[in-house]
Amino acid sequence: MSAIQIKNTQDVRRRTGTFTRANRPTSEGLITSYTHHNGKIGVLVEVNCETDFVARTDEFKTLARYLAEQIAGAAPIAVERDQVPADVVERKRHAFAEQVRSLGKPEHLTAKIIDGKVDAYFRGVVLMDQEWVRDPELTIRDLVQDVAVKTGEAIRVRRFARFHMGIA
Amino acid sequence: MSAIQIKNTQDVRRRTGTFTRANRPTSEGLITSYTHHNGKIGVLVEVNCETDFVARTDEFKTLARYLAEQIAGAAPIAVERDQVPADVVERKRHAFAEQVRSLGKPEHLTAKIIDGKVDAYFRGVVLMDQEWVRDPELTIRDLVQDVAVKTGEAIRVRRFARFHMGIA
Repeated sequence: MSAIQIKNTQDVRRRTGTFTRANRPTSEGLITSYTHHNGKIGVLVEVNCETDFVARTDEFKTLARYLAEQIAGAAPIAVERDQVPADVVERKRHAFAEQVRSLGKPEHLTAKIIDGKVDAYFRGVVLMDQEWVRDPELTIRDLVQDVAVKTGEAIRVRRFARFHMGIA
Repeated sequence: MSAIQIKNTQDVRRRTGTFTRANRPTSEGLITSYTHHNGKIGVLVEVNCETDFVARTDEFKTLARYLAEQIAGAAPIAVERDQVPADVVERKRHAFAEQVRSLGKPEHLTAKIIDGKVDAYFRGVVLMDQEWVRDPELTIRDLVQDVAVKTGEAIRVRRFARFHMGIA
């Protein structure tokens, strides 16, 4: 095992470059909650990183708090695009298609406009693609990526729950 | 009825059938969160009542906090029995049946023992049927009912989410 002390296979893989940051195992992290002062909106979010050391830094805690606040304010329905239920996307695409076709544009333009509308829909409801409420110049993906670079660890928003009083 | 001690008029109404509190609309309430100090377990719970006035009482706020704490500690999987997925119950019943049949008891006893085990399973995983962690003499249903009587309003635990770091 040579001069370098290798603690486990994950270390080996990290050293030998089998892991890129984005797919390194993220099993530590924080579960953070947020409730509006009036008690009518509540959020729970799990944010993962690679080590408990990073999970306990102010940088990571602040990120988790920003994410909870974002979810409360911007009401995403999924973390990533592939988690938006396929039938929901299909229904949206269908509705956009009806709208666009009624404009009577050439078919190749129509398809592009529909794709653009679906993309905009995703940017509205997918957490990682949303504009950050505190700085719309950045997406949430930019924000997370920024903290990943600063801490040197892969960071993943694993899941969230958002309750709005009386609304499903 | 004479021998039974009646604690209050609500008791009377319940007995005489004029009591419909459980069916009255509960559209107000509170969303309360709870996270373990280590940030590894988080809970969100929505508790409904009939008026915002009651939602803002200390009694109701305390109930919501107790419920969040209960969910964190006792890890229920559903609010009521009928919300436990049917296939989960079926699998449990099947496993209990195998256990009990291997004992070679008469069939009518076997059925009763299986029912008892399914009932015990529900009391373990259904929030309203769980023993209260702060006072195992009471179930959560007793606790909620007690606050409903004190506040004079129907109270309903509408939903909860519980995240345990790294566990689904």
